[in-house]
Amino acid sequence: MQAIAVERGENRPVVVETERPEPATGEALVRTLRVGVDGTDHEVVGGSHGGPPEGDDHLVLGHEAVGVVEDPGGTRFSPGDIVVPTVRRPPNGENEYFARGEPDMAPEGEYHERGIVGKHGFMAEYFTSPEEHLVSIPESIAEIGFLVEPLSVAEKAMELATASRSSFTWEPESALVLGNGSLGLLTLAMLRERSEFDRLYCLGRRDRPDPTIEIIEDLGATYVDSRETPVSEVAAEHEPMDFVFEATGYAKHAFETIEALAPNGVGALLGVPEPWEFDIDGGALHKEFVLHNKALVGSVNSNVRHFEAAAETLADLPGWFFDSLVTGVYDLEEFAAAFDDDDTTIKTAVQFSAYEERR
Amino acid sequence: MQAIAVERGENRPVVVETERPEPATGEALVRTLRVGVDGTDHEVVGGSHGGPPEGDDHLVLGHEAVGVVEDPGGTRFSPGDIVVPTVRRPPNGENEYFARGEPDMAPEGEYHERGIVGKHGFMAEYFTSPEEHLVSIPESIAEIGFLVEPLSVAEKAMELATASRSSFTWEPESALVLGNGSLGLLTLAMLRERSEFDRLYCLGRRDRPDPTIEIIEDLGATYVDSRETPVSEVAAEHEPMDFVFEATGYAKHAFETIEALAPNGVGALLGVPEPWEFDIDGGALHKEFVLHNKALVGSVNSNVRHFEAAAETLADLPGWFFDSLVTGVYDLEEFAAAFDDDDTTIKTAVQFSAYEERR
Repeated sequence: MQAIAVERGENRPVVVETERPEPATGEALVRTLRVGVDGTDHEVVGGSHGGPPEGDDHLVLGHEAVGVVEDPGGTRFSPGDIVVPTVRRPPNGENEYFARGEPDMAPEGEYHERGIVGKHGFMAEYFTSPEEHLVSIPESIAEIGFLVEPLSVAEKAMELATASRSSFTWEPESALVLGNGSLGLLTLAMLRERSEFDRLYCLGRRDRPDPTIEIIEDLGATYVDSRETPVSEVAAEHEPMDFVFEATGYAKHAFETIEALAPNGVGALLGVPEPWEFDIDGGALHKEFVLHNKALVGSVNSNVRHFEAAAETLADLPGWFFDSLVTGVYDLEEFAAAFDDDDTTIKTAVQFSAYEERR
Repeated sequence: MQAIAVERGENRPVVVETERPEPATGEALVRTLRVGVDGTDHEVVGGSHGGPPEGDDHLVLGHEAVGVVEDPGGTRFSPGDIVVPTVRRPPNGENEYFARGEPDMAPEGEYHERGIVGKHGFMAEYFTSPEEHLVSIPESIAEIGFLVEPLSVAEKAMELATASRSSFTWEPESALVLGNGSLGLLTLAMLRERSEFDRLYCLGRRDRPDPTIEIIEDLGATYVDSRETPVSEVAAEHEPMDFVFEATGYAKHAFETIEALAPNGVGALLGVPEPWEFDIDGGALHKEFVLHNKALVGSVNSNVRHFEAAAETLADLPGWFFDSLVTGVYDLEEFAAAFDDDDTTIKTAVQFSAYEERR
């Protein structure tokens, strides 16, 4: 079968011929429909993140997949079920994090990530997976099922952030998403689906007309241009934010978030920047943090519960949102276009087989 | 009656003669036993924090009080009950934070703090308080009841920090307290009473022999000298910490805490530093925050629930701890000694009347 991989030492994706995988006991064989491309894929391709399985000369890419169960083996699935695989797998047999269904909380060394580090991904005509790492989704979202994984990351961050405010009465009304990439926009849509947020903001640095600004405004949110209103001035210029969701990977944002927050607010950090030294007024930030009971939570990856929440959210979102967000779905012959990254690209996917409604 | 106050524009505590307060409806009259002195008192005396009630030329000091109900009025208390008052009061009649019993979550402008800002404190022979701001404590801890308020601040921070880890399985084993002042030592004792922490550490910068190091070691904890092992090196030198409690007010500690934490760990920040610019590797800290699901929670003040938890903790602690921690209790005639702050002083209080056991 054909797969999209990056070869060790190279920095571009190529089509490779590989063996169609044989499901082991407890595994299902899945025919791949679509696999999304995100910033992590670009980092893996560029060589700054992740790498092939030990001893392999290439890594099959892709961690945002949706597929159809072809052979359920002995699993709970039926042929034709639409499924999304989770990303982390135990590197050396089971460990405590996987055993309790919380692989997202495993520290470095206790996980591989399919398509990212140590284990082949889903950009192939077929893949296999143990049943506990597959999540059923409704057929209605089969074609956008590759958005379940990225949205699940936002769902987990939301869960962690909300938990951090659970020891007192927290009634958030305002939320700011830092970043108008696909993760930022998915998060904004998720927040819109949650009834508690009356006022949403999304920060970027684009000139109008711009397709992401259109999505932001069509979601009923306010676009904040960071070149005019830096994060540290959002509270004064707009309003203090009960919830801030950082999806830029721009390290200064992590610390400026403290200033953007309202009293008792929480910031969820998701970016993964490189080392970068800069100056902060650490005294003022520390004081503000304490005197107003603020919190920052870092969040990475997600587990089955978050995949299920993401599927529910996606099922509730309007069709126009996906039409605007997904700027390209490419067949294997033109897969390279899915790895383009310019200002007209928001979210892309590679299609391995077309979804056909069940009779 | 006599009270200890600081006069507007002055920076030393003095004894003043004031009217004995008359309890209003819903208030009890309390005869003061003892009132503790802490760093906030020193800041208030020095003029860097808080101030007198509007229109008053002085502020009666003291926010860590314990007393005996002299006249319960129409409240639920009986004469002779041992009570501890909370600190915050609504500045302009009730507001939502006070209405739901969470004055500790009120933002600036929505509270006064007795003995600190906008309202007279408890360093007087008698004080009155609405019943909802009084907490009953067992007679067994009457003499150390002035420790309930400071410990309640640690109990609240612990609650917030624990809540932030409640969306996943968190089984902390190691904890580090930054600061060997009275709040740090009270926190260390609180952590010792909680069964989950197997290994405790407390950081200071004192040479042996030192009374605080003795308390740390008598509590079974490891003393970490920050001049030899900075916070950023604690993880490598000792072990990564599941829980860090910052009680130094040293702003760099707030950010170095991220490095000291174990994966999925949480740091509670309690210090209130002044503005101070310095350099950090914000990129590395941000990345570490995210990839290991770490959290930081700021925490200030406390409410009735935390006072009750603190009273329970104090009742369980061994007598030797208080004998070592409380280095001086001074009558009104020698109150100035309670405001001394040298290396032999850990915790002091002013005694307004002696506790006599009920028949």
